[in-house]
Amino acid sequence: MAILEFWYEFASTYSYPAAMRIEQLTSEKAVEVKWCPFLLGPIFKGLGWDSSPFNIYKSKGAYMWRDMQRICDECGLQFNRSQIFPQNGLLAARLALAVRSCDRPEFTRQVYLAQFAGGKDIGDLKVLETILDKMNIDPATTLIVSGSDKIKTALRHNTDKAQEKQIFGAPSFITPDGELFWGNDRLEQAVAWCVR
Amino acid sequence: MAILEFWYEFASTYSYPAAMRIEQLTSEKAVEVKWCPFLLGPIFKGLGWDSSPFNIYKSKGAYMWRDMQRICDECGLQFNRSQIFPQNGLLAARLALAVRSCDRPEFTRQVYLAQFAGGKDIGDLKVLETILDKMNIDPATTLIVSGSDKIKTALRHNTDKAQEKQIFGAPSFITPDGELFWGNDRLEQAVAWCVR
Repeated sequence: MAILEFWYEFASTYSYPAAMRIEQLTSEKAVEVKWCPFLLGPIFKGLGWDSSPFNIYKSKGAYMWRDMQRICDECGLQFNRSQIFPQNGLLAARLALAVRSCDRPEFTRQVYLAQFAGGKDIGDLKVLETILDKMNIDPATTLIVSGSDKIKTALRHNTDKAQEKQIFGAPSFITPDGELFWGNDRLEQAVAWCVR
Repeated sequence: MAILEFWYEFASTYSYPAAMRIEQLTSEKAVEVKWCPFLLGPIFKGLGWDSSPFNIYKSKGAYMWRDMQRICDECGLQFNRSQIFPQNGLLAARLALAVRSCDRPEFTRQVYLAQFAGGKDIGDLKVLETILDKMNIDPATTLIVSGSDKIKTALRHNTDKAQEKQIFGAPSFITPDGELFWGNDRLEQAVAWCVR
């Protein structure tokens, strides 16, 4: 079974529809998804940006919010612009690596929904604890694991790996033969590439 | 008949497949295209860029060239990366405004084909003269018109208008009700928006 790597950052708006859509699209083609959370911050720093390019370039930012609304309308997703952008996704990313890999997709979707449908702050531990709790995952234990050296290293490793793979934004998709696709709008193409 | 504004810059890679595809897509939906050449340079300068972002951000640039190849392969367009990027599209843009509006679409396509299929330098007057000549448009007269104050002002006007309309990249599409869509990958959506 072909494995499509799905590289996402929790603060990334366009990663939200990608996370919500990917399993439907891949399951239709018998493609498996590897969920790879990483941090865009260090990559953006390398490009000379100290914030999201959507904040630095105002017209691009205004366009993105409108575009996101249209995309969410089209695929039937709620979209509430949160007050803070970009949010701090560090804790969410560590928790995503701390839960069992079979729980990672659902945890990821719930974090995106909390942020972009619920308008909640995912930098707030309570928001993340509520998600874990609802998924019947013990928040206290998971939080301890998420702060371990093992998980911290795993997230740093993912971020380094993303950079090595020439990833410069999220969501990004990498096919088994190494093709890089960037953006929610390239998801269908990336899935098709896996089975061509 | 709904009119879709098509804003393009001759140096823009992604404007090439858009220019080649737009009339097929719009004619299917009985939408008319208004061809609006403009210059991205002044807009990029406003964003703090002194070159194409694809040159400034290397990983983004490498991705764009690969993405362009995939897009052209998929829609059956030749793609030869020209040596110079971005090319100087000033003269081509002025000529596009100097020809009759009914000749603008074909002239535009021929300039893109010369650059991105033929690998030619569209800053070279001879390349543009050959295109005009093949279209049975008198190069000498058109060149004189293209250098007139009227045409220079028209191009400046287009560039100012693009900026007013919050355009920050090319290709961009604007629907009759003012929706902005950015990118060749949003062309289908822009056309659909005109007739929804």
